Amino acid sequence: MTVDPAAEPGRTPDAGYDPHATSLDGTADPAVLEELYAIRGSIDNFDATLVYLLAERFKCTQRVGRLKAEHALPPSDPGREAAQIQRLRRLAEDADLDPAFAEKFLNFIVSEVIQHHRAIAADHS
Amino acid sequence: MTVDPAAEPGRTPDAGYDPHATSLDGTADPAVLEELYAIRGSIDNFDATLVYLLAERFKCTQRVGRLKAEHALPPSDPGREAAQIQRLRRLAEDADLDPAFAEKFLNFIVSEVIQHHRAIAADHS
Repeated sequence: MTVDPAAEPGRTPDAGYDPHATSLDGTADPAVLEELYAIRGSIDNFDATLVYLLAERFKCTQRVGRLKAEHALPPSDPGREAAQIQRLRRLAEDADLDPAFAEKFLNFIVSEVIQHHRAIAADHS
Repeated sequence: MTVDPAAEPGRTPDAGYDPHATSLDGTADPAVLEELYAIRGSIDNFDATLVYLLAERFKCTQRVGRLKAEHALPPSDPGREAAQIQRLRRLAEDADLDPAFAEKFLNFIVSEVIQHHRAIAADHS
């Protein structure tokens, strides 16, 4: 990322993203807002990482979708999904993340993946 | 992770997770299943990374929640959320991920975060 040193601090001139965008301006102490922006900078970094990781995960599931379509296998695999849920709940506990949230998260991703698998199967038939 | 070399390949003896769990057994060619398991191994690694990353992201939003509660700021910040959505859609395009999915994903996470913020505010008052 190219940063123009003359630009407003924290703003990337090329991308148009304002990391200080907020509806709280004028309602909060500037020192509190500064602390908020500092934490949000970390959240923004985690979000970029999550997007790139999810993109890579979907590349894998697209490969699974093509494999299933080629061999006429069903889009969903309940035995696999049950094992994944148990594993993610346990990992979530280790990571100090709410296991119920981890399960909701996996269901959210898997429902998207199954839609993709169905679309690939429809294209294939 | 300790791996018992005598254990069944791909199975971790301590965790009980079976990376070969499937409802497709007997319905698919063993060579196809082997290819499926290889891709699923990568998916499992991405999922563990996602869980740890989400745990770290929630640590940040818990800090935001406490800050907001201490200074009586509202749990949601529509200006911030709009900027985040635009940024994540653009990052998704760069990563070859469906921008509509990236937006749904952020909304999914933010709705969880706002619930946490409300719970922290309720504890604080």
